[in-house]
Amino acid sequence: MSAPWKMRTDRFPAPEVTDDSGLVRMLGSAICGTDKHMYAGQTKLGLPGAVVSYPVIPGHENLGVIERIGRNAAREMSIDGTPLGEGERVVISADIICGHCYYCRNIYGYPWCLNHRSYGDVISCQDPPHLFGGWAEMMYILPGTFMFRVPSGLSDEEAVLAEQMAVAYGAFGRAAQAPNQKEGYAPADTVVVQGVGPLGICNAFMAKMLGAGKIIAIDKSEYRLKLARELCVNETISLTSYPKAAERIAKVMESTDGLGADLVIECTGAPDILSEGLDMIRLGGTYLIEGAFVEEAPTQISASRQIVAKNARIIGAAGMPYQAYGRVLRLMDNHKREVPFAKAVTHQFGIDSAEEALKKSIAPDSMKVVVTPKK
Amino acid sequence: MSAPWKMRTDRFPAPEVTDDSGLVRMLGSAICGTDKHMYAGQTKLGLPGAVVSYPVIPGHENLGVIERIGRNAAREMSIDGTPLGEGERVVISADIICGHCYYCRNIYGYPWCLNHRSYGDVISCQDPPHLFGGWAEMMYILPGTFMFRVPSGLSDEEAVLAEQMAVAYGAFGRAAQAPNQKEGYAPADTVVVQGVGPLGICNAFMAKMLGAGKIIAIDKSEYRLKLARELCVNETISLTSYPKAAERIAKVMESTDGLGADLVIECTGAPDILSEGLDMIRLGGTYLIEGAFVEEAPTQISASRQIVAKNARIIGAAGMPYQAYGRVLRLMDNHKREVPFAKAVTHQFGIDSAEEALKKSIAPDSMKVVVTPKK
Amino acid sequence: MSAPWKMRTDRFPAPEVTDDSGLVRMLGSAICGTDKHMYAGQTKLGLPGAVVSYPVIPGHENLGVIERIGRNAAREMSIDGTPLGEGERVVISADIICGHCYYCRNIYGYPWCLNHRSYGDVISCQDPPHLFGGWAEMMYILPGTFMFRVPSGLSDEEAVLAEQMAVAYGAFGRAAQAPNQKEGYAPADTVVVQGVGPLGICNAFMAKMLGAGKIIAIDKSEYRLKLARELCVNETISLTSYPKAAERIAKVMESTDGLGADLVIECTGAPDILSEGLDMIRLGGTYLIEGAFVEEAPTQISASRQIVAKNARIIGAAGMPYQAYGRVLRLMDNHKREVPFAKAVTHQFGIDSAEEALKKSIAPDSMKVVVTPKK
Amino acid sequence: MSAPWKMRTDRFPAPEVTDDSGLVRMLGSAICGTDKHMYAGQTKLGLPGAVVSYPVIPGHENLGVIERIGRNAAREMSIDGTPLGEGERVVISADIICGHCYYCRNIYGYPWCLNHRSYGDVISCQDPPHLFGGWAEMMYILPGTFMFRVPSGLSDEEAVLAEQMAVAYGAFGRAAQAPNQKEGYAPADTVVVQGVGPLGICNAFMAKMLGAGKIIAIDKSEYRLKLARELCVNETISLTSYPKAAERIAKVMESTDGLGADLVIECTGAPDILSEGLDMIRLGGTYLIEGAFVEEAPTQISASRQIVAKNARIIGAAGMPYQAYGRVLRLMDNHKREVPFAKAVTHQFGIDSAEEALKKSIAPDSMKVVVTPKK
Repeated sequence: MSAPWKMRTDRFPAPEVTDDSGLVRMLGSAICGTDKHMYAGQTKLGLPGAVVSYPVIPGHENLGVIERIGRNAAREMSIDGTPLGEGERVVISADIICGHCYYCRNIYGYPWCLNHRSYGDVISCQDPPHLFGGWAEMMYILPGTFMFRVPSGLSDEEAVLAEQMAVAYGAFGRAAQAPNQKEGYAPADTVVVQGVGPLGICNAFMAKMLGAGKIIAIDKSEYRLKLARELCVNETISLTSYPKAAERIAKVMESTDGLGADLVIECTGAPDILSEGLDMIRLGGTYLIEGAFVEEAPTQISASRQIVAKNARIIGAAGMPYQAYGRVLRLMDNHKREVPFAKAVTHQFGIDSAEEALKKSIAPDSMKVVVTPKK
Repeated sequence: MSAPWKMRTDRFPAPEVTDDSGLVRMLGSAICGTDKHMYAGQTKLGLPGAVVSYPVIPGHENLGVIERIGRNAAREMSIDGTPLGEGERVVISADIICGHCYYCRNIYGYPWCLNHRSYGDVISCQDPPHLFGGWAEMMYILPGTFMFRVPSGLSDEEAVLAEQMAVAYGAFGRAAQAPNQKEGYAPADTVVVQGVGPLGICNAFMAKMLGAGKIIAIDKSEYRLKLARELCVNETISLTSYPKAAERIAKVMESTDGLGADLVIECTGAPDILSEGLDMIRLGGTYLIEGAFVEEAPTQISASRQIVAKNARIIGAAGMPYQAYGRVLRLMDNHKREVPFAKAVTHQFGIDSAEEALKKSIAPDSMKVVVTPKK
Repeated sequence: MSAPWKMRTDRFPAPEVTDDSGLVRMLGSAICGTDKHMYAGQTKLGLPGAVVSYPVIPGHENLGVIERIGRNAAREMSIDGTPLGEGERVVISADIICGHCYYCRNIYGYPWCLNHRSYGDVISCQDPPHLFGGWAEMMYILPGTFMFRVPSGLSDEEAVLAEQMAVAYGAFGRAAQAPNQKEGYAPADTVVVQGVGPLGICNAFMAKMLGAGKIIAIDKSEYRLKLARELCVNETISLTSYPKAAERIAKVMESTDGLGADLVIECTGAPDILSEGLDMIRLGGTYLIEGAFVEEAPTQISASRQIVAKNARIIGAAGMPYQAYGRVLRLMDNHKREVPFAKAVTHQFGIDSAEEALKKSIAPDSMKVVVTPKK
Repeated sequence: MSAPWKMRTDRFPAPEVTDDSGLVRMLGSAICGTDKHMYAGQTKLGLPGAVVSYPVIPGHENLGVIERIGRNAAREMSIDGTPLGEGERVVISADIICGHCYYCRNIYGYPWCLNHRSYGDVISCQDPPHLFGGWAEMMYILPGTFMFRVPSGLSDEEAVLAEQMAVAYGAFGRAAQAPNQKEGYAPADTVVVQGVGPLGICNAFMAKMLGAGKIIAIDKSEYRLKLARELCVNETISLTSYPKAAERIAKVMESTDGLGADLVIECTGAPDILSEGLDMIRLGGTYLIEGAFVEEAPTQISASRQIVAKNARIIGAAGMPYQAYGRVLRLMDNHKREVPFAKAVTHQFGIDSAEEALKKSIAPDSMKVVVTPKK
């Protein structure tokens, strides 16, 4: 991606691997909302200061096989205490941290690093060794990256969802309180997902695996709502049938004995969605905001009615704790018979068709789209 | 049960229902470890001061249909804000609380009531209106009891597990910390269940629904281990194959990369099991003790090696928050397609065969045994 | 208060006390922000559906001595397990709950009751027995009210702060996570209080008693800032010296090594303050909103930059758990030598001077103002 | 300390500092229970596998001034994001971690490192550069150590308590739940400290700063009880006056309206103290075990009566999260006017008098004893 709306295929020399770095042969890279925003020229992303540096090789939800790994890297990039080895199938963390700033030292696990970089967007492919994104045959792994072994029982289609699942895992973790306290998310809660695209469906999967009582999804795409019902969602609310926010709020109230949902999760990316979401939670309910990644028009809410009087809890969630990657891989491995994760990958494209892949990912008749050198 | 080891069938007159009480036509009552202890003459039970008052009609895991309910009771006995009505299928809380003591006022939900009573054991059937236990056609519902509507999608065999599931729900709630903190139970954790009888299997079900990474069950009964594997358990350790504690500890270590389990749940009722369980948890791991209900020989542990040096967290759990009944019913309703709860009910007996039922429940070739007037 | 801006003194007959009610001889009633809003004709208050019913006897932060108490009330209105008796000095809960709705049954302690009423505003004094507010010689105590014994070591000036302190206690409780997790409030955190009037100073007291590392207060009143420094605040930021939000944000950054505060507490009541507060918290910081009680112009924030990218946690807090009253009285009793609570009560007026008291409470040269029959 | 009961003064050459290490000129080193155990020849300490390697230079509660620090070390050893510099007064973490094992990667902050070492006991002074303990003029700082700037407002006597205070901070953090949940420690709770020696008094300080409602201390030394009352403890129970456990339990019940304490903290080191402590907590109360560091006779408790029926929560706490050092220094700085920390340091000895210091620290008429080159 040389500039917004411009993509081309390029070749770079195979990089040398040092004691502290690695090289991964890609199996697949899933398209994220960030990629779409980047394609559309919205350059401010996620964490404070994160800015797209065109040209970039997109792709930060990455799965591959370790081709080469340095002596130190084998130990430093592992999170489970066992050094990594060549030939192992791994998920690659999207973020690279410095390890020494206030956040790295005090809020370990989260990529709230003051010197944070990420693959596929922040690091330009202009600088050698160039291979800093997943829509490629090979990817260069910088020091400060973590890699996570994939259980043999998981297919590539399941494993490539790990990054997005880790976002959901981290977000649920930040929302969770002990079940007996009845604040934040607790098992048996009613969960509403606003926008059941790739991020939304991963949150619905997580809700299902963590014991949600009922999952309601809202979207404008009938394709996505139908798929969501097949995968794990109990009820859906279509924007075609209920075009007004007030109607959708009424539907949620109807499904919750007039109380409102215990947890609403915003996965739309539309900033004006907040007021609707706040009206959908019960007194003392929780609102997880994960999708609002683009700096657009500010949003309007009522501090007194929608936050204070409601005793609302609003949690913004960008990124995930690193440990979450490994944990979601274990979670998915133990629940894959009950939850059909792989069906969320609806389309796969070769690297040369990456632009087509991007367009399909924006279309309403897709869920997760993967770019893979296997095609 | 007129005395330890003595049971007979008796008839009592149909009770009058006041504004504050109710009457339930029984569908079934599941046999609990407490019933077995009571049958064996171990009269001190559960919460402090709880003493069996023979003769009793046993049965505190109760399911039935409301036959009559008083005006006030309809509102007071409901937990979801909607009054109860005659003809509704309900689970009946095992405990009756005063509502005014320190614990009722400050630790709401838990039956840590200083004036606590419970059906089927503490309240004798000598006093009118006699019907204070579930192994009967009708049960009298005292003020201070809660009742919980059963979702229509749940079968009687599923619903009758609610009390035991609520114990597990409450215990997991007390163990849980936010997943990112990595203390207490968190999704993707490895869970060991010591003793996979009725209480153990309900804890395994709960672990499965709350996203455990791997569930390991230990038991002496091959019948129970086989059934547990069919229902939701990933690995089993048999006392026949591994008769020594050290062997079983080694097996758990082997399954956890030498770290130990994140959470061990004691469901055996054997007090001398504690030391083994503590040796199975990882550094900073959690040990939930739910089964040790009988006052027997004290247990020996090493405070320095097994608690302090291990940074262990030990949580004793008797009873459950009332809200948990309603929540597990919703949880089970939303996961019944993935988790075959009903198969845990392996035997059902008529009221006249209650003694036979008790004996079967103690035998190693049973899981949950239910006493029901339907047979 | 017969209507907005209108006050007069009236006499009502002494009420009869039933088995379920009580009568309290008032010692004092502190003026709250709600009283000021009510005086100004802003009739929508606090919890959903709470509407002022003029004429009212204001006063919901109440301290008095039990004059008469009914048999049942003595037990029902007590929270610590010991019945209340005549002659005991008590703080009276501001809220009256039904005890049966969804929230009363499931979120016990919080006044998120669907049939919620409160003294001094929602209950009109038109209806007998009229005495439903604290700016009076006597107050009638309805069933569903809790009363809390005052430790003998606390003066009236200290005890009359209990309601406001309980708001702060509940809010900190909802913000708190275990210190090691570093989300929400933890001891040693830097706390910013926006608006250090009566509610703000009680939050500062609470921060001090719960181990804050540094407390920074922001206000437009030099009088309040000076007093706050004397009482427990470490640093102050004056709106006179720093009239622009950007300047105040810069001051907070300067005091926190450029990171931002761990916890910001909004106690101004101005809805347009939110954006400033969100810019003052660190990555993953918490924003407690307690002051925004009046339905005014909606507030504008950036969902992507200020919530998601910042991984912010926003918690609205209205009301308090009932248990908090009793707990703050114990807390204050054990910390009164170190924290000069009583100095926060800067003015006291007789009942006949209530309007003057209200005006003083709105003036910048007051902190807490109390209406008392003792004057 | 060349062997149990044997101490001598020795001289070593001044070590070279590399890019990754440092050198600190000591100001003082406080004597810990571990030092006493080590002197008495009890060689198994704290975390699993930690074994004393005589000869050692004792001292792991260390305060000094940075004499030299390597380029990388300046950044790596800092926890607050700002590199350390020569001449800065610092507290030195007792533990050295590998940074790569399962625990370092997943439970960051705690020294539950599988390759854990610690100053003053585990690392022998036989190996160069020898200076691995604080009872010396200079101390060599290995890679993997953290150092923490001391606020200028804190005296050396206050700052040298940081390690012990950090143990208490971490332990309270692991005990804490949100106040509204009423499990674990919450502000206004009644706290009992069993054994108010140096560790006990630091826990009492922490309880005071974190808003305890009442603090009760138990000890056999009248000297320590008297001092504890002067410093921050509300009530004391003397083993001289109440020699039997049952009497002491009765005293605690009397002080808590017959309920038991919310939190009991074991700081005696005597393993047979557990049963007494468990009998002192209320239903659902918490028992923090910090002092049981020596492998002695196992302890006997009743799993059913003291853990399950009581719904007890038992937490073993060894070590502390690294972040806690920095946080307690800020906490102490902000509360030093109210809490007279420095008075807990009752005796100081020169390095040549270290053996005398040890003996004084074991005597009942001392609290914290410090070894310092300043004498």
